This record gives sequence, structure tokens and C-alpha cells, in this order.
Amino acid sequence: MTIQILKVDLKDRDVLDPVLKRAREDLSSTLGLVRPIIEDVEKKGDSALREYTRKFDGDVPDSFVVELEGLRPKIDSDLEAALRKAADNIKAFHQIQIPEDKEILVNGNRLGIRHTPVESVSVYAPGGKALYPSTILMGVIPARLAGVKNVQIVTPPQKGGLPDGLIAAARIAGADRIILAGGAQGIAAVSYGTETISASEFVIGPGSKFVTAAKVYLSGLGVIGIDSPAGPSEVLVIADDSANPVWVAADLLSQAEHGEDSVAILCTDSVSLASSVAAEVDKALAERPKRGEMKRKSIEDHGRIFVFPNLEECFAFSNRFAPEHLEIQTKNFREDLKKIRHAGSVFLGDYSPVAMGDYISGTNHILPTAGAARIYSSLGVGTFLKRVTWQEVSRSSLSELYPHVKVLSEFEGLDEEHGTSVKIRT
Amino acid sequence: MTIQILKVDLKDRDVLDPVLKRAREDLSSTLGLVRPIIEDVEKKGDSALREYTRKFDGDVPDSFVVELEGLRPKIDSDLEAALRKAADNIKAFHQIQIPEDKEILVNGNRLGIRHTPVESVSVYAPGGKALYPSTILMGVIPARLAGVKNVQIVTPPQKGGLPDGLIAAARIAGADRIILAGGAQGIAAVSYGTETISASEFVIGPGSKFVTAAKVYLSGLGVIGIDSPAGPSEVLVIADDSANPVWVAADLLSQAEHGEDSVAILCTDSVSLASSVAAEVDKALAERPKRGEMKRKSIEDHGRIFVFPNLEECFAFSNRFAPEHLEIQTKNFREDLKKIRHAGSVFLGDYSPVAMGDYISGTNHILPTAGAARIYSSLGVGTFLKRVTWQEVSRSSLSELYPHVKVLSEFEGLDEEHGTSVKIRT
Repeated sequence: MTIQILKVDLKDRDVLDPVLKRAREDLSSTLGLVRPIIEDVEKKGDSALREYTRKFDGDVPDSFVVELEGLRPKIDSDLEAALRKAADNIKAFHQIQIPEDKEILVNGNRLGIRHTPVESVSVYAPGGKALYPSTILMGVIPARLAGVKNVQIVTPPQKGGLPDGLIAAARIAGADRIILAGGAQGIAAVSYGTETISASEFVIGPGSKFVTAAKVYLSGLGVIGIDSPAGPSEVLVIADDSANPVWVAADLLSQAEHGEDSVAILCTDSVSLASSVAAEVDKALAERPKRGEMKRKSIEDHGRIFVFPNLEECFAFSNRFAPEHLEIQTKNFREDLKKIRHAGSVFLGDYSPVAMGDYISGTNHILPTAGAARIYSSLGVGTFLKRVTWQEVSRSSLSELYPHVKVLSEFEGLDEEHGTSVKIRT
Repeated sequence: MTIQILKVDLKDRDVLDPVLKRAREDLSSTLGLVRPIIEDVEKKGDSALREYTRKFDGDVPDSFVVELEGLRPKIDSDLEAALRKAADNIKAFHQIQIPEDKEILVNGNRLGIRHTPVESVSVYAPGGKALYPSTILMGVIPARLAGVKNVQIVTPPQKGGLPDGLIAAARIAGADRIILAGGAQGIAAVSYGTETISASEFVIGPGSKFVTAAKVYLSGLGVIGIDSPAGPSEVLVIADDSANPVWVAADLLSQAEHGEDSVAILCTDSVSLASSVAAEVDKALAERPKRGEMKRKSIEDHGRIFVFPNLEECFAFSNRFAPEHLEIQTKNFREDLKKIRHAGSVFLGDYSPVAMGDYISGTNHILPTAGAARIYSSLGVGTFLKRVTWQEVSRSSLSELYPHVKVLSEFEGLDEEHGTSVKIRT
């Protein structure tokens, strides 16, 4: 069997802890590599960007900036239809995420919350091996719904020019322009701006470890806001004996298809499901050879089938693991959803493979990985909005509350001015 | 005059840009200082923490952990009443921030959002010069409302033991315990946990530059989530000729009372208001001598009165500045609120000095500084909640959408498994 089957319970820390810890990319060495690149681009702008682009990407484009207005990409009508359908569904789901402003009377005073968007966002779209127009839709559409004025895509220059599929996705999503720059130099260029590139205050989207390190470094300096750092893709499937082993196997291999470092785990209470899924994985690897080496290596190194004594332990393990993608293929999946505290995106029942969310259902596929779902959300409209709180204090309430302000400000040693600023208004 | 009056318009970049850039603390050198401390505490736990506490704080407490259950702090009844009133108002305002879970049918599929809290939070409360029980209320109450199970306070050990006022605030806010550790070593201890201290996945609250650097460093490593980094306190007041110069002057001095690096700015369209506020600042400095040197230095170095040609330019400047605290003392303050895009907390009208929000009105006082309000929110219930998205795809919708998934996965080179995982379910 390519995939290991392990009978475990929650107390088997020796087996489970290394899986829980998984590939949390160690950025410290990469941070050292990207820092001089970032500082160069900050200081020298386009000339430094040209130099690094020549070094890392080969050809340097005539202009780093491609304005989308007026461009007419040539793509097949079925690709156009698919992108439009995906965009419509993403819009429909993200629309419900727009929060209402609120207001409440507390102690006679009007207090409220307004939600305002950041002004400018860059969405990083990886180049190289894979081209993901779907990621452009996922990054740009929520930003536009949040009301962000200035949304640009930043992506490495491609040999043979910018693919029409990317341009089409960028136009359908509603981006303003595409910046042809990749890696740490690209992130630095859109964070600081250059002679030709306008700066963004928020930079999101998945990328290589250099991209991630550059985002983390610039966010730490306070130059930009970022989404949660992206690592290798991962799925955790919780299934009982009602699940279809052929479908579960295909879902595990879908993650393996992303790369050798992808993580695919099945947790079940059923020994028989475990062995049939393992057999189906081998069968599928034989029948579907494309990206075969990569899939096999991913499954061998990071694939696991854990047989727990019961489903409750599967859910407890999943909450500790906090998977990027979580599939629940159990009899009572609707009830089981309530047990989930930490996950990026959850896929319920037999007909919800991760690929539906990756492409078309409308949920976002830019998600926290490597356990970051314990503390971070998936990308959404809220990523780009801020709560601005406000208050209008009434004269009578101010007088009524002053004695409390006096006591508290005296205790904190701030009565001379904090206390006085209230007292003189009573 | 202690405070400078400057006639400007938005084009005066030479004057305005240095003010906009203000004290964005350069953390890079501090990061180098805190890193070995953090690594020591990670490796050696309590023994390293003891060593650094002896070095930086003097006395080492018998135990780093003070459980709050059963403790009966002795405080005056008026302090108790003030803390309880503040807690009630904070609860009332933060209650409305608890988001509803949502669900929608998109393309025949059920898609939804659940909100789940992080599991554990540490709230840093600075020690030393100032003691801020109010900050404990501001940090702990929203975490509890979000449903965080484990909430502890981390604060430097004090000579003479933990003040009863802090213990009372912690109990009223509903914290579980107090960790007696400060600085970078304290942040490291609650981030990694030690033999005696339990780890938190989220660490918030203001502190010294060492505290901030430690938070930023550990957040960059993916060890903890943090609120926005805190710098010197600041207020920007927008006022027209309807404002009371005595009150405006007191509000500027309230910020100056926090420290020499605090920033207090008045933007107005009224030359006469400008000069009367400047005169009132001098008068108040003479009449209220407490913390006099600090206030004078803050006003001299960072205080400014900008007279713009009109109020619109005041609002435009304020949105660029993105103040931590923004007071609007104009005739049309309700209408003017709509012009605000970037600010931490906004105070409207004549009876809403910042001190009301600092202590008692119910809004949060843990706010983004140094322009971070352009990208970050004030602390709130949402700080501790994550959006977990879910979907239940129907068999018929899966079949209907499969052709689109096929096209998109082929374009991205992921048809073999991503495409197949959908196809086999049709």
C-alpha cells in the first residue's frame, strides 16, 4: 500500500504530534535572503526590480505595468463561461459577508461601528509551474465587494507573455491592472511602490517561500497588511463506513496533485473503509498516471489513514490539526459540522469534494494552512474591512459618569489631564 | 506659544509628510535584541524566565502563576464601582459585535459561515510607570464575549506584589489567571508555554518596544496571532469655530500626559480657534503642573495646530494620518463622521473627550497607532473570532457544474485528480 494505515487513539502522541506539527515552513533563513532584495527595491525602485527580474525570471518585460482597461483577451468560450460562473458564485457567497454598520445606546450615549475598506490591495498570483486564474477571482472579488478602490494583480513575467486566461480572469474579477513582477522583488515593489508601480497597503495571495517571507517581513515592519501565510496545501477527511472509498481516495489524491509536500489525511472509525480507501488510492495511482511521481511521493511522505476508536476522536484530532480543507463524509455530517472549531473550509457529505470549492461553488480557496486555522480565517470580505468605532457622549451622561472617570484616572495617575478633560465639561 | 501653529494646505508635503510618517518605531534593531531571549525561554522554560526576570525586573516571584479564583482583592468601593460600571458598558458595546452565523443557497448548494473563537488568549498589561486596570477590561472582556475558553493576563512582577486594583480588574473582566512576567521573556513564556505557564495562541495588548518586537517576531514565525502593534498614543482633533478652545486644549494635553512621544494635533479652518487653543494650552500647562515636563516636551516636539483653508482638507489630512483617536468638534459632526475612512476610534461633538472612551463609555481603547488604522481595526470581539466557511453541494448541482470544473482544472493542469474527483460523482 502506498498510504500508511495506522490504528491510533488521541494518546498516541509519538505518532500524532509529528503530523500535527507538519510542514510549518521555517522562514528564518529565507527572511535573511529576502531582506537585501526588499531593501534594494525600496531604495532603487524599478532599476533594482529590473535587475532581480533578469536574475530570477530571465526576460525583463518592457513595462512592469499592464493596464487591463481596453485589453481583449482571446479565450475559448467555455473557459469564459466557467470563469463567469465561478465569479458569479463567489460574488453571491461573499456578498453575505458584508457586515452591517451598528449603533447602540449605552448609558445614554450613542456608540457605533462603521466598516471601512483598506484603500489598495495587491493580489499575488504565482507563475511558474501552475497558472491559477481561479486564485485571481478568489483574491480580487472579495476586495472589490469590500469597496477597495485600487486592486492590482502581481505575478511573475511569463516567457511568451501574459496568458490570455489570466488577463480574462483579472478582467472578470474586476482588477485594475497587472504588475509583472514575481518573488520577493515583486512583493517589495507593490509594498513600497516604484517609479512606475503604485504601492498597495495590503498584499495577499499564495506564493513561494520567498513571497511568503517577503510578506511576513514587510508586515512585521508595518509597511503592509497581509493574509495568513500560505504553506503546502492539505486536506483532512473524516469518514465513517457510509463513505464511498473511491471518492475518498480521489479527494486524497486531489491534494497530492498540488505538490510533493501536500498533506492528505483520512481519519475514520472504520477499519474496512481504511483498507478499501488504501486499495483505491493504489488503483487510482495506476490508472491515472499524470503527475504520478509527485502524487506518489506526497502520499508516501505525508499521506496517512488514521483509524481511531470512534468518530469523536476523529473530530478532536481534526480540531487540533486545524486543516486547511476538511471533508466530513459521515452519516450525520450536518450535526458533525457543529463539532468543528478550527478549519479553513469545510466540505460536507458525499457530493462536496474540495475541487468544488477550489473552482466553482463560491467559497474562497485562499485558506490558512499548517494549523494556522486555529487562529486565522479564510480570505473573505472581512479581510479588507476595518471596524471604526465612534461615540457621541451626551452632556448628562458625561456628568453622571465623571465620578467613575475621576476614580479610574486617579488610580492610573492620569487624573491631571484625563480627569480634567471630562470634569471641565460637567 | 508652546504649540506650533502652521497655516498649510494639502500640497505642503514638506510640512505634512514628516507628521504623517511620525514615530513608526523601527523594530529591526529591537528584533535582534529580543530573539535570543525568546529562543532561551523556548528552550529552557521557567529557568530562563527566572534568569531574565532577575535581570530586568529585579525580584523573581515565588510562582509566575497567580490563579484568580478565590482571591479577594481589597479595593475602595468607589474603585470597585467604577470598574464594574466600565465593565458593564464595555460588555454592552462589544455584545453587538458578536456576528451571526450565515447561510445562503448558491447555485443549488448550501454555503455558510460559522464563527469560532481562538482557544487561548494572553492579554499583556504593562507595569512600571503606569498601571492600567482599564486595559485589562479592554482586553479580557471582548475575548470572553467571543467565547475564548482560556484567558490570562501577563504583566511584569511589581515590587511590593501585585496591586489589588489589577487583581480586581482581572476578576471583574473574567480572566482565569495572572502570569507575572514582563517584556520579551513574558511574551515568549505565554507563547511557547513553560513548565508552569500554559501557552496562548493569541497574545494582545500594548507594551514596550521589546514587548511589541517579541509579539511581531513570534507572529511572523506563526507561533501566535497578535493585535496590531502598539506605538505612542495620539489624538487628532478636527474643530471649527464652534468648538470650545478650553476643552480642545485639555484634550490635546490628555494625550501629552501619556508620554513625551505622544502626538497631539489640531486641524481647523479657523485662525481664531487656532490661536485661542494655543493660548489655552499654555494657560493649562501653567495651571496644571503634574507631569508638566513630559506634557510640555510632547507638545513642543509632536504637538501641532494646522490651519487648513477649509474643513474638507482637514478630513482629507485626517484620513491620510489615520489617527488612533479622532475627535470631531464641528457644527455638523454627525454628517462629518461619514467622511472618516481611517481612524481607530472617533469621538463626536463637544461632550466626547477621548478620556470617556479610555475609561467608561464602552468602546475599546486598544487601538491601532502610527497610521496602522489605515489597515487594522480597533480591538473587538472580531479580533478573537474566525470565519469557518462550509458547503454542502447537491448531487444535481455537482453534475450541472462539472463541465465548468473540467474546463478550469484543465486550464490549470489539475484535471487528472481535481477534475476526476468531481466527475466520478456525477
